[in-house]
Formats: sequence, structure tokens, C-alpha cells
Amino acid sequence: MIESIQHRRSIRKYTSDPIEPEKLQSVLEAGRLAPSGNNKQPWTFIVVQSEQQRQAVMQACHRQTWMMTAPAFIVAVADMAARSEADLPIYIDENSPHWELKRAIRDTAIAVENMLLEADAQGLGTCWVGFFVQSEIRPVLGIPDNKFVLAVIPIGYPAEHPPARPRKPLAAIVRYEKW
Amino acid sequence: MIESIQHRRSIRKYTSDPIEPEKLQSVLEAGRLAPSGNNKQPWTFIVVQSEQQRQAVMQACHRQTWMMTAPAFIVAVADMAARSEADLPIYIDENSPHWELKRAIRDTAIAVENMLLEADAQGLGTCWVGFFVQSEIRPVLGIPDNKFVLAVIPIGYPAEHPPARPRKPLAAIVRYEKW
Repeated sequence: MIESIQHRRSIRKYTSDPIEPEKLQSVLEAGRLAPSGNNKQPWTFIVVQSEQQRQAVMQACHRQTWMMTAPAFIVAVADMAARSEADLPIYIDENSPHWELKRAIRDTAIAVENMLLEADAQGLGTCWVGFFVQSEIRPVLGIPDNKFVLAVIPIGYPAEHPPARPRKPLAAIVRYEKW
Repeated sequence: MIESIQHRRSIRKYTSDPIEPEKLQSVLEAGRLAPSGNNKQPWTFIVVQSEQQRQAVMQACHRQTWMMTAPAFIVAVADMAARSEADLPIYIDENSPHWELKRAIRDTAIAVENMLLEADAQGLGTCWVGFFVQSEIRPVLGIPDNKFVLAVIPIGYPAEHPPARPRKPLAAIVRYEKW
């Protein structure tokens, strides 16, 4: 496992090779199987492959044109409503205070990480794109105002092999017994 | 990878066998290597092994007494301040609105999932415990009020082998091109 975690990179340049449908399914399956608080599974994954929709999503991601080299995007949506009894008709965004939204973000992040690791295991590259705002990206995909887009994940075969990025040493992030 | 993801379970009963230090290090390393927005790595992991501190943390987790069967807890703390320019002297909790806090939660969730998967690969069991409130658990560990405890992870050798919990089918969580 640690080898896979060490191996994975954020990829921002892809080949034009299409993704085999069974590989894409395996990536989605890795997300589907993620653990979540109370097993609520508060996530939806939107697979975007058409040129037109990828263009629109890329535009909403502040025009990161490199994204268009990827043949598909997986848009991971955190659904606070999936954690509540009712489908709340509320508007949420980056500054919403709700604990349920934080939990849905937490759980959906787990599922996304599973997908990134499974993609790497399948020889596919990914990048977690988070540079967008809810008010701009939701309309592009027709996502209701009570869902929160957590990630846009370009996915495809890597056309670059970047070195590992630096990480803080363990000594800087691990404490014992107390803060 | 998918096999590891399929294999992992939430474990709520552990043997009394201690965790080899090199295995614990490998788990922490898996968290350390996680990707994060702008590579901010907004996480701290507190390893709790003493009987007294585990008792205190367990109490703060609404007295889930099964937790005490685990020889160690890893407490994952999301640090909104690590994403900002300054170490903000603010109080945050479950209902805080800050986008930076949501990002720190997102990133720390990625790191925790890496640790859960690496633990499984090492033959260790884990459970993501999230049933506590900030105002009660932070004082137990001396955690500042501008940090957010995202998870308490009991870790140890499993003394139970629960079946897989149900998940929604892919058809219920995957959409194509738009919501």
C-alpha cells in the first residue's frame, strides 16, 4: 500500500489514449466502497467525457487549460442532504457553517482518495482540482444548490512523470500523548 | 488497490498484541505522503498509547468502551491555520463557516484514509471514530482552539472479522455528463 501511496503523483498532462471502460468502472468502484460516517455514503460522481462539457467545467475551474488533455473528468459531489433526514432545500457554499456539510466533505474526500489510488494502480493519472467556486461550477453541470462540488478529477494516461513533491518530515506532524 | 479497499473493515475489537513501532511508523508515513490542496499538508497526528490518555479520549468519544481494546489511538487534527498566512487566534468548532476549515478537513480526510489503508496492508485494524465534540475532546489533549479534531483512530490487531457493510450500487451514485 505504501508503495502505491508513494508512487502516485498529480498529473497535469495526459496522452490522447482513451480510458478503458472497465478501468473507469474500477476507479468508481474504489470510491463506492469508501467508508463514511454512519455509512451514509454522501457522494455522487459525475463522469464527464464530452468535449463540450469538459470545456465548460474547465472554464469554471478558472480556465486551467491543461485539464483538456484528459479524456474524462470525474466530478465528486458531497451531498449534505444524504446525511440528513430530508432533502434540505437550502443553498450552501464555501462559507456555510453546517456540520453536516463538513461531514459530507470529509466522507467524499475519503472516496476521492480511494479513486486516486485505484487510478494509479490501473496505470492512470489524476489530479485533484479544487480551484473553482460553487456558484460557478454547479450551473455548468445542473447540480442543485444543496450539493457541494468537492473535486474535479481529470483522469487519463499520464504524459508526464513529475518528481515527488516535498512533504513535511514526520517529526513536524506527529506528536505523542498530547498536542 | 481495489482488493485492499474491498478488504478493509472498521474494527471495534482488538487483541492485546502491541503494535510494532515500524508498522506504526509506516501508517503515519502513509498519512504524511497524502496529497493536499496547494500541498499545505494541514494535519497533525497525535499518537496516544498511555492507558490514562486513552481513557480520557475514550470518555470524550461518548464513552465508547470498546475503544480501550486498541493499544493505540491516532488522533488526526485538521489545522486551518496551516492553510493561512498567520496562526489565527480564533475559536472554531462544528458550526464554523470558514472555507479554510473545510479545506483542512478535506485534506486531513485524505491523509486519514491513507493511514486506514496502510494499516490494513500491515495486518492492523482501525476504526474512524467521529462521535465527539470539539469542545470536549480538545482539552483532553491540550489542542488549541483553532485546530479541529477530525478523527480518533483506534489501531491494533483485529480480534473480530466483520462482514462487509452494504454500499449503494454504482447506478445510484454515478451520473454521466451532468447531474
